[in-house]
Amino acid sequence: MKKIKVTKGALPGSKKIYVQGSREDIRVPMRQIELSDTIDENGTTIHNPPVVVYDTSGIYTDETANIDLEAGLPKIRESWIEERADTEKQEQLSSEYGRVRLNDKSLDALRFQHINRYPRKAKGAPVTQMYYARKGIITPEMEFVAIRENQLIDKVTEKFKSDPRMPFKSEIPRYVTPEFVRQQVAAGRAIIPANINHPECEPMIVGTDFLVKINANIGNSPVLSSIEEEVEKAVWAFRWGADAIMDLSTGDNIHETREWIIRNSPVPVGTVPLYQALEKVNGNVADLSWELFRDTLIEQAEQGVDFFTIHAGLRWRHIPLTLRRLTGIVSRGGSIIANWCTTHKRESFIYEHFEEICEILAQYDVAISLGDGLRPGCIADANDRAQFAELETLGELTKVAWEHDVQVFIEGPGHVPMHKIKENMEKQIELCNGAPFYTLGPLVTDIAPGYDHISSAIGAAMIGWYGTAMLCYVTQKEHLGLPNKEDVKEGVITYKLAAHAADLAKGHPTAYYRDYAMSKARYEFRWKDQFHLALDSEKAMKFHDASLPDEGHKTAHYCSMCGEHFCSMRANREFRKELKDCSLDSQAGHD
Amino acid sequence: MKKIKVTKGALPGSKKIYVQGSREDIRVPMRQIELSDTIDENGTTIHNPPVVVYDTSGIYTDETANIDLEAGLPKIRESWIEERADTEKQEQLSSEYGRVRLNDKSLDALRFQHINRYPRKAKGAPVTQMYYARKGIITPEMEFVAIRENQLIDKVTEKFKSDPRMPFKSEIPRYVTPEFVRQQVAAGRAIIPANINHPECEPMIVGTDFLVKINANIGNSPVLSSIEEEVEKAVWAFRWGADAIMDLSTGDNIHETREWIIRNSPVPVGTVPLYQALEKVNGNVADLSWELFRDTLIEQAEQGVDFFTIHAGLRWRHIPLTLRRLTGIVSRGGSIIANWCTTHKRESFIYEHFEEICEILAQYDVAISLGDGLRPGCIADANDRAQFAELETLGELTKVAWEHDVQVFIEGPGHVPMHKIKENMEKQIELCNGAPFYTLGPLVTDIAPGYDHISSAIGAAMIGWYGTAMLCYVTQKEHLGLPNKEDVKEGVITYKLAAHAADLAKGHPTAYYRDYAMSKARYEFRWKDQFHLALDSEKAMKFHDASLPDEGHKTAHYCSMCGEHFCSMRANREFRKELKDCSLDSQAGHD
Repeated sequence: MKKIKVTKGALPGSKKIYVQGSREDIRVPMRQIELSDTIDENGTTIHNPPVVVYDTSGIYTDETANIDLEAGLPKIRESWIEERADTEKQEQLSSEYGRVRLNDKSLDALRFQHINRYPRKAKGAPVTQMYYARKGIITPEMEFVAIRENQLIDKVTEKFKSDPRMPFKSEIPRYVTPEFVRQQVAAGRAIIPANINHPECEPMIVGTDFLVKINANIGNSPVLSSIEEEVEKAVWAFRWGADAIMDLSTGDNIHETREWIIRNSPVPVGTVPLYQALEKVNGNVADLSWELFRDTLIEQAEQGVDFFTIHAGLRWRHIPLTLRRLTGIVSRGGSIIANWCTTHKRESFIYEHFEEICEILAQYDVAISLGDGLRPGCIADANDRAQFAELETLGELTKVAWEHDVQVFIEGPGHVPMHKIKENMEKQIELCNGAPFYTLGPLVTDIAPGYDHISSAIGAAMIGWYGTAMLCYVTQKEHLGLPNKEDVKEGVITYKLAAHAADLAKGHPTAYYRDYAMSKARYEFRWKDQFHLALDSEKAMKFHDASLPDEGHKTAHYCSMCGEHFCSMRANREFRKELKDCSLDSQAGHD
Repeated sequence: MKKIKVTKGALPGSKKIYVQGSREDIRVPMRQIELSDTIDENGTTIHNPPVVVYDTSGIYTDETANIDLEAGLPKIRESWIEERADTEKQEQLSSEYGRVRLNDKSLDALRFQHINRYPRKAKGAPVTQMYYARKGIITPEMEFVAIRENQLIDKVTEKFKSDPRMPFKSEIPRYVTPEFVRQQVAAGRAIIPANINHPECEPMIVGTDFLVKINANIGNSPVLSSIEEEVEKAVWAFRWGADAIMDLSTGDNIHETREWIIRNSPVPVGTVPLYQALEKVNGNVADLSWELFRDTLIEQAEQGVDFFTIHAGLRWRHIPLTLRRLTGIVSRGGSIIANWCTTHKRESFIYEHFEEICEILAQYDVAISLGDGLRPGCIADANDRAQFAELETLGELTKVAWEHDVQVFIEGPGHVPMHKIKENMEKQIELCNGAPFYTLGPLVTDIAPGYDHISSAIGAAMIGWYGTAMLCYVTQKEHLGLPNKEDVKEGVITYKLAAHAADLAKGHPTAYYRDYAMSKARYEFRWKDQFHLALDSEKAMKFHDASLPDEGHKTAHYCSMCGEHFCSMRANREFRKELKDCSLDSQAGHD
């Protein structure tokens, strides 16, 4: 195997800070963007406090960290998991397939070196965050996410109060307490995907009452890519803001690829276990069985996967509903289940074994992402009977999962025209009792291949505003090919944009504060601060410098778009000065 | 001057067709996308009728046309204008500045060769489309746009009826008659920007009850670009779907640049005359005067500009309302007016002379785009008192324009978070009596420089759905620099996407039909048809071919995203076949 290379180092103008919680080992990473001073019209220097933003990038952006991909990330949750004393290390891997792969000498060169041969498993009772939340216990994970969600909001609200020009009056302080997190997790309204075998994970929360999260799909296909490329894509996705990743590999060495990714991932990792199960039977759907699937769940749970997409809601009787569709079943998992059911002429084994699945997942705290196997694959099929029939079943299964203290969230479409988006959110809330919604876009038109990150970001921003908790990105390669590293970045930034727009529409003060800081920098021609506050500092600077590359232009009071005379920002300075001497009463203007 | 080079030739898989109206010289251009046949599961060949779409590209995509940029486009409206016998050719240019430029030998090398030295002007009564509409007369322009809007809708509705799988039931046939166009123009609810001195223009209509249109801004800045580059950008914008362009040049030789653009533009051209007026006084705002502005209006009206952005609604008393803003006045025109008012300590000369402006414009049928000089330039300033105070004035001015039979539309923001977008549309409808709305985005966040085409497309799609008639694009260079040719394309395609999404949400059958055809091609693995139906055929093909370049892959039943085993579209074929033999009653599934 080639040596894996990933991008490291701080983001421009930023440094990593850690905010300590109630104990020394709760250290919540954040990104602090340093700003330059404002020079006002009298030449007075005014300090601009740094802006602290949510940080998904892990220690890869910590200049002081020692990063060794072959050893994996530090296990920040290890002591928390041990303390609970509810798990024990197994003497060997519980999955047969896992053992076969581990003992296969021919894989030695591919295998992650410090593989965990003794994964943890519950001693008896469930070990999920939901289980503890319902017992009234605030775990370190819960405290961690509370601090993380707040992003030092106190400093922001202080600033809101002290700056008379701050136009946004926050009505909701939105201060998240660990107790609030516990209540939300207990109620099933939010989840903290955190497998006990993924101690490297920096906990995050997914729920309507929290910041909107985004997921980036990576993974090879039988046609393309390697372990090196996938790890590189993963770290790249963390850097630009992925709150979670899903490894959707369907190609070679899925097991080994996943091990490398999880050991080096500071964010929760999701998978679709059915994909690997199908690989194990060489793509012959008919050969899939509960036993094989079960072993795959255990194999992946012991590697540390934090959430599984499981298409348990696609029942045999739903399949005929798709026959009148224009594009039938477009979910990969969904089409596999449908194929299995029609081949064997019987109910889906995943639906039938759902209780057992929950029992397994409760032993590792793997969250279930209830897959929407019948999501519409085109505008014409949106919001049809097939889609909503499956959603009803997902609602029923949500309750079953909760009975087992398993954390659960619900996947959503797909392709939906704008006027039909809201109905998706409303039905999901109604049918799934407030479990978090996790949507793929939705794409608001089918005719934009090459631009499907945009087509889907429109729908994603809207459904995020309506209440969706996590948005699964769509890249510009969607419908055309496997995304490469650059596509991953475009997709992540586009979805950060959509999620942030949703946070603004939901009224989050910390979201407003970043826009406020950006626009203040813009008005004051602090170009470097603008670049640093941007979702993509590198591209913003590159675009600016394409026409005005000199260092002096970084403080110029114009850019190449309008030039000097036509810069409106510059003009304001002039007429504002005039206005002071003007007879016009500024209060009279407020008619 | 260097020879101007523009991109010509048909779009991939497409040919130009013309649909004739009630007379031979009404020939409405459309783009016909040819599709390949479907081969069904029994091997039977089924013909797919071509898809006809709206075409803004002019004769540049007509393989049979003779294109000579130095001679300009054919004057398709000339006979219609002559027939009305309401205009006469002037003996010379009416604008003093126009005459000076024409007689300046040093400009000979830059000047468009066949410049019109004898522009038309009304003999007496207004010559606007609104004037005729109110008289009950259907002009050839009105018939042209009716045919153009329909896009052969009869064939589409026929197809809707005959294909039992066509899931979209159109409740509104939306067949646009010339009489409906006349009524809408008469009522001020729609405009047809069509200066009598722009006979090359293929008429188009802007109104809530028509397809959503997009505008692309081009033009040089004092820092960058040339005539050649701007003409090239303009033709490039037509090719990808710009329904209108605005030449916002603020650099050198604005007059000559505009002449070249108009003579070669099949779409309406807009400008902001104030920019050129300011250039004429070397950027000294204090020196601007009504006389200078008036001469500029006449100069540009006689060149053939179809619509003027005029910031007449920004009054002296509004300016103090902006003092508390985070980013003050961000409209270039707005900041010039504000500067002028505060310098002279008096009311804006544009507001004071608005009736005279209307009298001039009625003589040429230049439409007014009432500029929003006080649009918010950041999330923090959205929907504030300054913005809505100006909108109230725009509503008053709309009535004044209508008294003069001048066609008018209203410009809108800017930067607005999602939850505040709808209020903009509602207030605009209420205050401006249903005149068409024309918005710049709006951008739903400030923190995405480098991605502002996306940030604004989210807002644009939403406000288009709510009723905005035309969307002004924002490029990825916004806030950073002047867009180049590639930025123009990205911007145009992104906005076509937003406008199309709005058309879908508004229920237009022709919009649905293109998505239907695309998804049918996708389901049937007709890759080339997918590329041809895409908004950007070239990029779609490039992305696909990046991983699977062989010709054989253009008919392959998978792509590199999922590979063969995991292609859901492929899987459907298998289980649909199985399902036929299955005991499961397909009707029973429809519970």
